[in-house]
Amino acid sequence: MPLPDIRFSQRRQQAEEQSIAYLMKQGLENREVISLAAGFVDEVTLPVSLVRESIADILTDDAAGHGVLQYGTTAGFGPLRENLLDHLARLESCSTSDLNVTSNEIVVTSGSQQLLQHLSDALFDPGDICLVAAPTYFVFLGTLNGVGARAIAIDTDENGMRMDALETELGRIEAAGELTRVKMIYLVSSFENPSGVTLADDRRKLAVDIAKRWSKEQRILILEDAAYRELRYEGDDGPSIWSYDESRQHVILAQTFSKSFSPGIRVAYGVLPRDLVSAIHDVKGNFDFGSPNLNQRIVSHALQSGKYEEHVAGLQSSYRVKRDAMLAAADEFFTDIPGVSWLRPHGGLYVWMTLPDEIETGFDSPLFQQASKAEGVMYVPGEIAYPKTSPLQKRTQMRLSFGVESPETIRDGMQRLSRAVRHVMD
Amino acid sequence: MPLPDIRFSQRRQQAEEQSIAYLMKQGLENREVISLAAGFVDEVTLPVSLVRESIADILTDDAAGHGVLQYGTTAGFGPLRENLLDHLARLESCSTSDLNVTSNEIVVTSGSQQLLQHLSDALFDPGDICLVAAPTYFVFLGTLNGVGARAIAIDTDENGMRMDALETELGRIEAAGELTRVKMIYLVSSFENPSGVTLADDRRKLAVDIAKRWSKEQRILILEDAAYRELRYEGDDGPSIWSYDESRQHVILAQTFSKSFSPGIRVAYGVLPRDLVSAIHDVKGNFDFGSPNLNQRIVSHALQSGKYEEHVAGLQSSYRVKRDAMLAAADEFFTDIPGVSWLRPHGGLYVWMTLPDEIETGFDSPLFQQASKAEGVMYVPGEIAYPKTSPLQKRTQMRLSFGVESPETIRDGMQRLSRAVRHVMD
Repeated sequence: MPLPDIRFSQRRQQAEEQSIAYLMKQGLENREVISLAAGFVDEVTLPVSLVRESIADILTDDAAGHGVLQYGTTAGFGPLRENLLDHLARLESCSTSDLNVTSNEIVVTSGSQQLLQHLSDALFDPGDICLVAAPTYFVFLGTLNGVGARAIAIDTDENGMRMDALETELGRIEAAGELTRVKMIYLVSSFENPSGVTLADDRRKLAVDIAKRWSKEQRILILEDAAYRELRYEGDDGPSIWSYDESRQHVILAQTFSKSFSPGIRVAYGVLPRDLVSAIHDVKGNFDFGSPNLNQRIVSHALQSGKYEEHVAGLQSSYRVKRDAMLAAADEFFTDIPGVSWLRPHGGLYVWMTLPDEIETGFDSPLFQQASKAEGVMYVPGEIAYPKTSPLQKRTQMRLSFGVESPETIRDGMQRLSRAVRHVMD
Repeated sequence: MPLPDIRFSQRRQQAEEQSIAYLMKQGLENREVISLAAGFVDEVTLPVSLVRESIADILTDDAAGHGVLQYGTTAGFGPLRENLLDHLARLESCSTSDLNVTSNEIVVTSGSQQLLQHLSDALFDPGDICLVAAPTYFVFLGTLNGVGARAIAIDTDENGMRMDALETELGRIEAAGELTRVKMIYLVSSFENPSGVTLADDRRKLAVDIAKRWSKEQRILILEDAAYRELRYEGDDGPSIWSYDESRQHVILAQTFSKSFSPGIRVAYGVLPRDLVSAIHDVKGNFDFGSPNLNQRIVSHALQSGKYEEHVAGLQSSYRVKRDAMLAAADEFFTDIPGVSWLRPHGGLYVWMTLPDEIETGFDSPLFQQASKAEGVMYVPGEIAYPKTSPLQKRTQMRLSFGVESPETIRDGMQRLSRAVRHVMD
């Protein structure tokens, strides 16, 4: 009997291969290559002994352990959600009561990608619009694509998304009769992946005003992705976009412990507008019945003991050295290549570099081949961080991560990359 | 400024509140009530010391711990997937090589609900058809509803879904010109939730034949949900439906450690037809980048040390006592109520009881109110385990779980329930 094909859903047939999957495959197939591509955190900074001690406390006896190994609630472990209020208050430099939210508005997810996906599932119909920075987090572009939403890129400078450009685009959309399709403005507020830029304080306030003002028939939500917020190596942390929304009904704040603690634990959380809470609980309930209890207890324990804060302070010192190593190497190896520029991030994991107009950086470009095959160094091509059809898309940029390699290897990688660029320019 | 509403996606607007959410709320609001409703496992059986020892080994030093706290791969921790092959071979009473699959066909998920959801996402367009037993696992009915798929119930007896009825329905669907919409046959092969019935061995083989024979234009897949497989208290475990599909291209086998080990760990797995593997990896990658590493290592360690098997043996003894307590209490309190019958399951967590025709059991029924409010005992109404429009739906059944309560409390709960039934009958 012949074997007929599996007929996949339309959604699945239309989904594009995620660039991240391609990159991970490349990384696995070329293990000796220096990775300035991986957005992973540095293994040596992972809090192994802290987790070990936390678990010993959490599972100290059978009675304590039973609750840990049982199903939890969809919203997440209650005491953790209380800890998260205190944690958030610290980050916002205010008292917990001044946050003007309760733990009911907090949902714990398995990584913030899961929250991004659940929000997309709950909000977007095919053709609905999400406004994003140019460039923006490319995995979220894939998530939007997965639910058929249209991502429209807004011009962005070294202070983040330009609010004048955002208003102009909203006006254009309204003129085209499509304002009711705008569901969300997506903003990575600190040390954006991939550009490393931080949204300026005045723009944060303005973004909330714009979302409110343009919520004419339906609410336009801001999704503030603050994944890198705690990885700050210089300057002071300002208030979030979320903090400017006194109604607490326009901004979703997404934060994660994947960057500041451990990605393998898969614990992240969102602070949701009240009107969104039950929808997100329903989606998450349908998808996995709630995140693993054990993992949530580990984070709760680390927050409560104060060891989390110590850990983050250590992390900042360690990454600061690596960021400085990458910037020094950029100065050393790229300054005399004409037409090359890069941003100096105050935090996060990435340096964003722009090459001369004629030097494309995509997976199929001569540069990518020269870098990955001849020189043995990998980067993330900048073009994947723009919606495919955006007129703002540039093909000559690179995301360079200082996350996984040591300062010495970062310098080595930057030298190799500069050789590849010179080779292609010649 | 007025606050405009959030406009949810069509998908979200159409989603019905999951009955399980209602039940959990009821359970939380009535904590003193005896729960014969919750499908949870018994807390005292949870493997706290086993997990504690596993983690001590896994995080024994920083070097070992780093990999645990880092991102993993979407498919799941490689060594665990190898352990799962050995584990599956034990369950199938064959050698690992006789399984005729590799660890590439195994995907680890955060609970089997996640696999069920990912499969639904990858396969079903609105209007596509999934054939299910009557009754069947009600949470999966919600998942199908969430992607707009039609669940069609097939008549089921004490040996599981009737294969003659399945063929009749396929013929009817073909005559209606809709055979190409049939994507899946869903079968909970052992101790089905809610009915406790096990699909007879001859029907397992026949189900594979039918799926192959009716795969005319597109493949009809069988999703074998073997969640309760290891909770067997009498008789011998036969081969899975999956084992009868020598092509390994028609049956998805879904298994979980939520029932046999710990639901709070959230580790489950699927054995996938080769043609499905990359689609499910893509969906899972988009949803959460892969399941938490730590949790997968715990299960891997327990499997490898042989302690998992010991644990399951202990679990079986403990649940056997509780099943016997529930069946004895049914004999004691229900035998002399005319028109009441129930099934005697060989495993799992549930006893399925049918009341006389006039006694409805739904959330709004006099019986549910009398039981939960006056008598303080909760059950799951059987009607939610049928597709809403199915002519096979019965409204006079109850799922009685012996999962969470002690043998003494089970007896007490059954006595209370019998009083409620008598009260409503009078």
